Amino acid sequence: MKTAIVGKIIPLVPTMPEEFDGYVIVEENQIIDVGIGQPDGYFDKVVDGPKQVVIPGLTNTHTHAAMSMFRGVADDLQLQAWLEKEIFPREDKLTDEIVYWATKLAIAELLLGGVTCFADMYFFMDEVAKAVSETGIRACLSKGLVSFSGEKEIEVGRAFCQKWQGQGKGRIHTMLGPHAIYTCPPAYMEKVIRVASDRHIPIHMHVSETKKEVSDCISKNGGTPVAVLNKLGAFEVPFIAAHCVHLEDEDMEIMAKKGVVPSLNVSSNFKLASGMPRVEAMEKAGLKMTIGTDGPASNNDLNMFEEMRWTSFCAKVTGNPQSVPAYRALEMATKNGAHAMGWKNLGIIAPGQIADIVILDYSSPRLNPVYSCLSHVIYAGDPSDVMHVMVDGEFVVWNRKITTFDVQETIEKVNEFAKDFA
Amino acid sequence: MKTAIVGKIIPLVPTMPEEFDGYVIVEENQIIDVGIGQPDGYFDKVVDGPKQVVIPGLTNTHTHAAMSMFRGVADDLQLQAWLEKEIFPREDKLTDEIVYWATKLAIAELLLGGVTCFADMYFFMDEVAKAVSETGIRACLSKGLVSFSGEKEIEVGRAFCQKWQGQGKGRIHTMLGPHAIYTCPPAYMEKVIRVASDRHIPIHMHVSETKKEVSDCISKNGGTPVAVLNKLGAFEVPFIAAHCVHLEDEDMEIMAKKGVVPSLNVSSNFKLASGMPRVEAMEKAGLKMTIGTDGPASNNDLNMFEEMRWTSFCAKVTGNPQSVPAYRALEMATKNGAHAMGWKNLGIIAPGQIADIVILDYSSPRLNPVYSCLSHVIYAGDPSDVMHVMVDGEFVVWNRKITTFDVQETIEKVNEFAKDFA
Repeated sequence: MKTAIVGKIIPLVPTMPEEFDGYVIVEENQIIDVGIGQPDGYFDKVVDGPKQVVIPGLTNTHTHAAMSMFRGVADDLQLQAWLEKEIFPREDKLTDEIVYWATKLAIAELLLGGVTCFADMYFFMDEVAKAVSETGIRACLSKGLVSFSGEKEIEVGRAFCQKWQGQGKGRIHTMLGPHAIYTCPPAYMEKVIRVASDRHIPIHMHVSETKKEVSDCISKNGGTPVAVLNKLGAFEVPFIAAHCVHLEDEDMEIMAKKGVVPSLNVSSNFKLASGMPRVEAMEKAGLKMTIGTDGPASNNDLNMFEEMRWTSFCAKVTGNPQSVPAYRALEMATKNGAHAMGWKNLGIIAPGQIADIVILDYSSPRLNPVYSCLSHVIYAGDPSDVMHVMVDGEFVVWNRKITTFDVQETIEKVNEFAKDFA
Repeated sequence: MKTAIVGKIIPLVPTMPEEFDGYVIVEENQIIDVGIGQPDGYFDKVVDGPKQVVIPGLTNTHTHAAMSMFRGVADDLQLQAWLEKEIFPREDKLTDEIVYWATKLAIAELLLGGVTCFADMYFFMDEVAKAVSETGIRACLSKGLVSFSGEKEIEVGRAFCQKWQGQGKGRIHTMLGPHAIYTCPPAYMEKVIRVASDRHIPIHMHVSETKKEVSDCISKNGGTPVAVLNKLGAFEVPFIAAHCVHLEDEDMEIMAKKGVVPSLNVSSNFKLASGMPRVEAMEKAGLKMTIGTDGPASNNDLNMFEEMRWTSFCAKVTGNPQSVPAYRALEMATKNGAHAMGWKNLGIIAPGQIADIVILDYSSPRLNPVYSCLSHVIYAGDPSDVMHVMVDGEFVVWNRKITTFDVQETIEKVNEFAKDFA
């Protein structure tokens, strides 16, 4: 099966033009050719509509997909109050079946919005993995770990990694998911880190999300979350640090040196009054930033176009409008995310890369005129621009419809469950 | 002609439930009945789809619609550099024909995104008024005034008001549009204010958009823009103050006392590195805030859902997650905006109000499950949710298509003109 995709290509390859009229050839699950102009040869399928813009699949490096179940159930609260009063009691009522369907609901939203890969941290992760496997999306999954569930949970988290790493035809990667330093204190983290190091398993963790997390950590553990984790050796394995709202300059230095990858989640941080991350400072510190949405209960959607835009905006608003320009924002939400989740040959449009590709439709009044397609992706882009989505060489969204599962059934199931959570 | 609209109604009327299953009856251009349950009687048209959510039309209180012509032509610059190097030279090449078509392009985006009324400040305003008149949208128009165009321009601005106030079957209101204190110094503003007072014409002006504007004003004129304008008597007529990014507490006091209405434009302020407005402080000061997008060249779209959300987010991020909850954000972008633009019986869903109504489609995975429709409007809403739009009792958008003009023709015209601006 050989497919040619024709349109305005934004390859994110430094040796190619930023955008050009050209083609991408996909065979099996790989990009085998990219070029300027019209493609030559025989193809099983040619995708060639008017005003098509072709970008790498978007990568969401921090979410809790099944929290779509709690979208809008409680707003306008601080993180701790929101978690303790509204979310934790409801999470106690979750079942494997609910997590399965709620994850599928989130996957529908992700795929329809051009997200081809996401990093998830939650419970009932076998169900999440099953949903990922069936729906055709790509994901990096971690079971959330908290010390009050006991040390045996670390072993459950590890076993999950062993069971699912590389499954779903290679579309599933796994990590250990210690929740945060305030739920996984140093003694517990030591054990998590030992497992991670011994088994070469990366870590996905909330880091410095709120001021309180940082000040509590300093008074309890004698350093910022980043300093404490570094001392414990957490950064000797690949590490996604979600949020990073309250980083000291020294934290950034450590993270840059150790290659720790921040996942910025600005909508959630603003909504929960956690604060605004110092994006421009992180950029200057040389951090390889990525972008996430956080769970759909604190965002309240999974719109990566908006997250890219506002990550760039947050970089600019502190005084430098040139910070995180469109190209950089798109890199963060494609290549950087793919690499952070463990796929090194994913995230740009170039021969030899895995074929996770999004085709945008630029016929809307909102996207005209076009001086730069790239500018529109970041500064005017919207999930509704997404027309076709390819993951691992397969079209999982075609003409704005999911091809791999029944979205209507999923919505009905979730709405049925929702009656118990209102 | 009597139309019944059935669905989940969000009326924004304090004496009614926040949202309820019910109906809205429209006759001619007025809402004549609103109730819970199913409507009784004969109707020429019944609009009753599954998962319909009915809200007042959104009101955008600050834009430069025809700048859709320059969408994405230059990004990542500070306001002054952006204006002086990229925008002003291009604006010199604008013609009445270009402004007409570019305004129509913006109107297509506005209507498709649920915006039924907008406040515009630009040039060639007869063309803008013509576009408003033909397309069926509602607008409050002002010719932009700057002192270097000479005092005769004030008379042109006034004559424009006289010519167009109440035209378009009452859908056009007008204001005087002195650009900003740095382009309209006190001596010039005195003359503008005299005309405004004599003729009872409201004013629409950029106020305290950047730090530089404020510090320059203090050193040149001995006070902040708000203080100087107040002293000149500018606030004796209704006044829309666009941006309000850098307000002192004293500025807010003056504005609250005088009923000056801020139009917040947070996307533009972040993008141009102008800063973040003190939304929570303005809320506490009792200001009747409204929301705008600014022009589509500095945003780069006209997405009022995103502006509502991020206005609320900006209120929260400084520490209070309860600030500007969903209900308040929607009020700002409907009722408050309508009142600020001079329509006192517009902006809520109640008998006797003008029928500017937006019907949202809640069938998307992104909008499920639903615990609160209102929460979704603000925290997960998107222009693509907009299904039907009624302005002044007429459906100007039906099934996500503009009914009043040819959008395709408009896009083609604008793209033709764009060749000269690249």
